[in-house]
Amino acid sequence: MKPLPLALAVFLGVLLGAGIYDRNDPAPIAPAPALDEDRPVVEEILAQALGSGRAHAMLAELTRVAPHRLSGSEGAERAVDWAVGTMLELGLENVRREECTVPYWVRGEVERLEYVAPRSRAGEAVPLLALGGSVPTARGGVRGEVMAVGTFEELEARADEAYGKIVLFARPMDDTLADTFEAYHDAVAQRTRGAQEAARVGAVAALVRSMSTRRDDAPHTGGMDYDDAPRIPTAAISTNAADEIVALLADGETVELELELDCEDRGERLSANVVGEIVGRELPHEILVVGGHLDGWDVGEGAHDDGAGSVQSLEAARLLLALGLEPRRTIRVVLYMNEENGRAGAFAYRAAHVAELGDHVLALESDRGGFAPRGFRTDAVGESRDVLASAVALLDGVGADGLWEGSGGADVGVLAEDGVVTIGLRPDPQRYFDFHHSKNDVLEAVHPRELELGAACMASLLWVVAEREERLPPNPIPEQDED
Amino acid sequence: MKPLPLALAVFLGVLLGAGIYDRNDPAPIAPAPALDEDRPVVEEILAQALGSGRAHAMLAELTRVAPHRLSGSEGAERAVDWAVGTMLELGLENVRREECTVPYWVRGEVERLEYVAPRSRAGEAVPLLALGGSVPTARGGVRGEVMAVGTFEELEARADEAYGKIVLFARPMDDTLADTFEAYHDAVAQRTRGAQEAARVGAVAALVRSMSTRRDDAPHTGGMDYDDAPRIPTAAISTNAADEIVALLADGETVELELELDCEDRGERLSANVVGEIVGRELPHEILVVGGHLDGWDVGEGAHDDGAGSVQSLEAARLLLALGLEPRRTIRVVLYMNEENGRAGAFAYRAAHVAELGDHVLALESDRGGFAPRGFRTDAVGESRDVLASAVALLDGVGADGLWEGSGGADVGVLAEDGVVTIGLRPDPQRYFDFHHSKNDVLEAVHPRELELGAACMASLLWVVAEREERLPPNPIPEQDED
Repeated sequence: MKPLPLALAVFLGVLLGAGIYDRNDPAPIAPAPALDEDRPVVEEILAQALGSGRAHAMLAELTRVAPHRLSGSEGAERAVDWAVGTMLELGLENVRREECTVPYWVRGEVERLEYVAPRSRAGEAVPLLALGGSVPTARGGVRGEVMAVGTFEELEARADEAYGKIVLFARPMDDTLADTFEAYHDAVAQRTRGAQEAARVGAVAALVRSMSTRRDDAPHTGGMDYDDAPRIPTAAISTNAADEIVALLADGETVELELELDCEDRGERLSANVVGEIVGRELPHEILVVGGHLDGWDVGEGAHDDGAGSVQSLEAARLLLALGLEPRRTIRVVLYMNEENGRAGAFAYRAAHVAELGDHVLALESDRGGFAPRGFRTDAVGESRDVLASAVALLDGVGADGLWEGSGGADVGVLAEDGVVTIGLRPDPQRYFDFHHSKNDVLEAVHPRELELGAACMASLLWVVAEREERLPPNPIPEQDED
Repeated sequence: MKPLPLALAVFLGVLLGAGIYDRNDPAPIAPAPALDEDRPVVEEILAQALGSGRAHAMLAELTRVAPHRLSGSEGAERAVDWAVGTMLELGLENVRREECTVPYWVRGEVERLEYVAPRSRAGEAVPLLALGGSVPTARGGVRGEVMAVGTFEELEARADEAYGKIVLFARPMDDTLADTFEAYHDAVAQRTRGAQEAARVGAVAALVRSMSTRRDDAPHTGGMDYDDAPRIPTAAISTNAADEIVALLADGETVELELELDCEDRGERLSANVVGEIVGRELPHEILVVGGHLDGWDVGEGAHDDGAGSVQSLEAARLLLALGLEPRRTIRVVLYMNEENGRAGAFAYRAAHVAELGDHVLALESDRGGFAPRGFRTDAVGESRDVLASAVALLDGVGADGLWEGSGGADVGVLAEDGVVTIGLRPDPQRYFDFHHSKNDVLEAVHPRELELGAACMASLLWVVAEREERLPPNPIPEQDED
């Protein structure tokens, strides 16, 4: 597949929205010859990473200190403190908090969904998690007959049936796709926009089949947005529960549920990104960002999402320090706050550093779980793309030498508008949505060697680009359609 | 890296031994252009595999019916019956048992290893598993002071210390290597030859640090060989236990252990490979073999080793049948008996089919676990290698388009001596040795999507080669140094 012309890529970028979830674009970039002079360093980095087990040890600490790290929570602040302390321990320089203002939403004590009808199941509980940002129900709950739809188009076509009902967005992620992120992208609007669309046709609540490639009993939460439609309560139910309801409806049963949520929007709070550096020995003002996000949902431990990316970013820096590799340019670790429900940290970083974004050579993100690395996605064009392809080619020994077109990720992607080249680690995607935003996302689900390999690949890429004599040229600044 | 000249490759093959464990050779083969006309079929196969979940359902059946399948056991015979029944259900033709004579070794009731000294630990149990084929100890056990060595060279150098002792082969697998199979290859002689070498210097028993990349309490068993040295009892201990003993010795402690085993060699038994076919529509006498091994150790459930490869071989055939793909040549599923401790099934297959080995176009094996596929290893040379490289290039969409030099595997590798081209699935290797030959190797450790992707890659490769107008040329028959 040929690379997209830039104008088309930008158009598609706008079309697909700059929402929280970047489009997965699996178009491969043609391989380039590896920068063989850098092979010895890459091999040292790999051996140091695999032999040390440090990334997993850091993840164990983070998930113990702050298993729940939703923006605004005490856990998120403990994670910030932990990150500051860890950066200092690792010997990073200029370690600091950089403030941002985040939403403060709390799940509350009451989360209840149960069958009212059919009578044979009355009182039976349905596993659920409120979506982040949902309004509560009235005390005592809200009842409604369930109407299941597969698409927004179907909802619109059946709009006259929806009044007073609970709408269930029931379309599964397409498990026949090899790339689970593509399946996620195709299905996730049910979660992010379901409450809006259901409210517009008069529904009293919106449920969504969890975004997961597994059939099990664990609901998966996530972010959602209200617009000018009435705000109705909304929650994710487990894939098994959704499939059961759909089966009952297909059998001609009437399904009625009662939903009660006492979650609460408590406004905003101050929080922070955490930043630390290895200052460049020759060109300290030229900066390579590497980061993941510190915040996470309030279930599980956020081990893959994105404890993994956070500790891999720290570990990438540690690996260079441990091997005495002093890079020509500055490597700046940025652990972002609030990726999950607002990206306040990403926007705050951009605002705080707007004057030096022209000196941002590369922004690297890891936010797709701590699985065995397969390569990277990048929005680089022209010479920068060629250089990155040659750098990534060095990772053939671990099977991480793939390079695909795409945004570097949700946090670093914010900098793309300023011409910063972004790149994101692409781990194996098969298991990610088993864990994502659910109680399953715990330390034990992250394999030490897989996690470390990703960190080693990130460190290798950073080293090659930071050390290279010529700086990576910036991307052309995309035209803005709005403002 | 350039391909090895054939003569050198054969020499190395002999040098490295035709033992149970084939040398992992990670030399990559240069990519070739994909056979784009086959892309639509490959995409159908992938979607069918991922959407169906059948491979994992078959694995659930096999591990329920016959979790323990060591050659000669009742479990192994139940696995044979299950395989025959499953092949019939899938609609394979010419389904049959093909007899082979296997060793019949049983673990027995008593497996006990405990500290005698230092006194502070006296009576403390050490987690162990007898190695398959070990002789028992005398009733009541054998006691000895422990002497730990890292290499056979060290044992030889310290031979005069060994008399009457228990030798512990304590060298860990090298976890700094990205390829865990390379680390296994470098360490496993401690298990296969440890008892011989220890006996030769007068030891009373041999222990080995488990072949695992994890530090935990689960011992990993496996095969071993006696030679003309006295036969002493031998067992694997957990990696944690081995490291503790080494630490005590390093502190200057004397460590004494008591080992008791009542395992037993009961001679031989009749067993069988299980064979079934999709008969070729035009060239039925030309055969592509696809297989894994039905037998497994008597701990865990042999889910990765090699339940995964067995069900992937069945699933590869099922996928073609489900899609109505009738291949030009015959695809023969061979589920081998006794890979783990003798390869009697592989040798029996060769003997029974010697007259038609010239018509064996390809022999494909899966025996490295049910993880996300990265590509294949092959011993093909010349045009065959080029064709296989072009076929494997079709799997770029799932990141399984790597091709490396190497034997297809322990079972199909037996046919390489007759010029049969062999090829083996190469899954991601990071997690395999967490499970291998231990109680950890259970159904739950196998991810459905990862397993299915491997099966789909195998089916795609089989289809392309079976359907191609020209047959894949055989390899030159290697010269034999012996006989």
